[in-house]
Amino acid sequence: MKKIINKTENVVEDMLQGMVKAHPEYLKRISESNVLVRKKSPVKGKVALLSGGGSGHEPAHGGFVGLGMLDGAVAGEVFTSPTAEEVLKGIKAVDGGAGVLLIIKNYSGDVMNFEMAAELAQMEDISIEQVIVNDDVAVEDSTYTIGRRGIAGTIFVHKIAGAAAEKGWNLENVKRVAQKTIKNVRTMGMSLSPCIVPSSGKPSFEIEEDEMEFGLGIHGEPGIRREKIKSADEIADALLDNILKDMDLAKGDEVALLVNGLGGTPLMELYIVNKEANNLLKEKEVKVYKTMVGNYMTSLEMKGVSLSLLKLDEELKKLLDSKADTPAFKQL
Amino acid sequence: MKKIINKTENVVEDMLQGMVKAHPEYLKRISESNVLVRKKSPVKGKVALLSGGGSGHEPAHGGFVGLGMLDGAVAGEVFTSPTAEEVLKGIKAVDGGAGVLLIIKNYSGDVMNFEMAAELAQMEDISIEQVIVNDDVAVEDSTYTIGRRGIAGTIFVHKIAGAAAEKGWNLENVKRVAQKTIKNVRTMGMSLSPCIVPSSGKPSFEIEEDEMEFGLGIHGEPGIRREKIKSADEIADALLDNILKDMDLAKGDEVALLVNGLGGTPLMELYIVNKEANNLLKEKEVKVYKTMVGNYMTSLEMKGVSLSLLKLDEELKKLLDSKADTPAFKQL
Repeated sequence: MKKIINKTENVVEDMLQGMVKAHPEYLKRISESNVLVRKKSPVKGKVALLSGGGSGHEPAHGGFVGLGMLDGAVAGEVFTSPTAEEVLKGIKAVDGGAGVLLIIKNYSGDVMNFEMAAELAQMEDISIEQVIVNDDVAVEDSTYTIGRRGIAGTIFVHKIAGAAAEKGWNLENVKRVAQKTIKNVRTMGMSLSPCIVPSSGKPSFEIEEDEMEFGLGIHGEPGIRREKIKSADEIADALLDNILKDMDLAKGDEVALLVNGLGGTPLMELYIVNKEANNLLKEKEVKVYKTMVGNYMTSLEMKGVSLSLLKLDEELKKLLDSKADTPAFKQL
Repeated sequence: MKKIINKTENVVEDMLQGMVKAHPEYLKRISESNVLVRKKSPVKGKVALLSGGGSGHEPAHGGFVGLGMLDGAVAGEVFTSPTAEEVLKGIKAVDGGAGVLLIIKNYSGDVMNFEMAAELAQMEDISIEQVIVNDDVAVEDSTYTIGRRGIAGTIFVHKIAGAAAEKGWNLENVKRVAQKTIKNVRTMGMSLSPCIVPSSGKPSFEIEEDEMEFGLGIHGEPGIRREKIKSADEIADALLDNILKDMDLAKGDEVALLVNGLGGTPLMELYIVNKEANNLLKEKEVKVYKTMVGNYMTSLEMKGVSLSLLKLDEELKKLLDSKADTPAFKQL
């Protein structure tokens, strides 16, 4: 296993310490927990946004804690849901009196533990709501999911609901716009290589030197099919075809496009994919209002890419454009 | 070769198209060239900063074109210097009448072609100066270099000289502070895996499953030694030891720290390295004024990390802190 780590059982602890040391102006850690929150937390009178899930998807989610995005992120062990107890610590740490919105990726463990924490918080009179992101069009049920998985499209939910909360919207309204974002976003990914969970030391799957896995998940779960490696243009086309089949887009509609690297993909290759993704959308007369290219929701060292499309309206555009200042996403 | 590309001979062209499509609000491409410049270029009356070099180091350098950093970047083929003719196109495109500063990484081809372009520009009465970055403490001469190589520390030169130029400083003064930055910055890296230049299709070196290469360059050039993989803490300590031996740092001095991923390294591992790097500097009573963690100067899909230290004074701190807005580096 080729990794730059210390003891395998300490990777999350070491990483969290390294994150806080890297970004002391943004982040603090709630003591005796794996919860990262904004330096000045809670923000009084503002709806608070809390997300999280298994580690190994960095910068998601701790990297998106800051102005205009999340108030806090709860980190589980690698690819393992945080406990309800940890989520509850997160809720209490970010609650500024205006309620808390939980942004949950659709994995059975995450949903169960975040919902249990929400119930416990309600017993302590904290207003709490939740949304479940299920943007992956690849598979209906998976190893870890009933229904569609939540993957890179989650970043749009952080950004848009985060902007709404920053503007002082109430909990109901922040939840509404988060749900609209979820309704409007679709993602699909592919991979050239597996990832290796440190504690197991073994690749998540075996794959031949000339093969790629199409439609896989961010934990190395199987996708739709295994096939020979295609060109970047063919890959971009195939991913977009699957996404567009599942979306209600008309000519002239506007979208945001996220070209997301899975952790081990050179930025050069992400830009190459972006070229064709933009060209294809132009051909279809869909207007790309904003493009993001980079590692936003990763899967350890996996080599691969996902494309996400978010259908926009005036409200979503305004929220997408507003200022953000977090370790991994800044917008002036 | 597991890459998401089209034809190997088109990777730079495809990438440049993808970059401009991703960041139309920041970048434009000078026609019939591989030169990216600011959307609104030239900036009249401002000293212009031009950098560049072989491709494969993304986001360097096109990702750093924008407010407070570069005015333009010239992209050569993968790991190949751009021609003098291309550099000259870049100079002419960014020159706003106050002169142009070339920021060159120390590789023989880059130095030769940038210097030739400078001479040609001077013949056309463009004021031009240059600085050569040579931050790598690992080796004295290398496959591609006489003297020390220029690697990730170059990002600090972009940021600091870019801030000075944005403030309206003249060419002489921008060059002075760029040279001070070069004098004060040191870098060293290590790698777990080679990279593959698309046109060759072969790994830059062979390495065993339990080995790492210590002190290598960003083109997969050999380093100081091959050894068994050590822990992240030991790696951070060894890199810093080599850097500190070469620096004149006293207790109480302030530094900026860059933990740079080489392209295929998960962010989790960079944060783990950052934990120990920060701890060690604290032990030595060196104050870390600012930390940057991420992929800034990469080597295609190479798995590895470099550490850079920049010794700060009040002038450098102020310039480091000022606003920047580029595709790959934003600071509010």
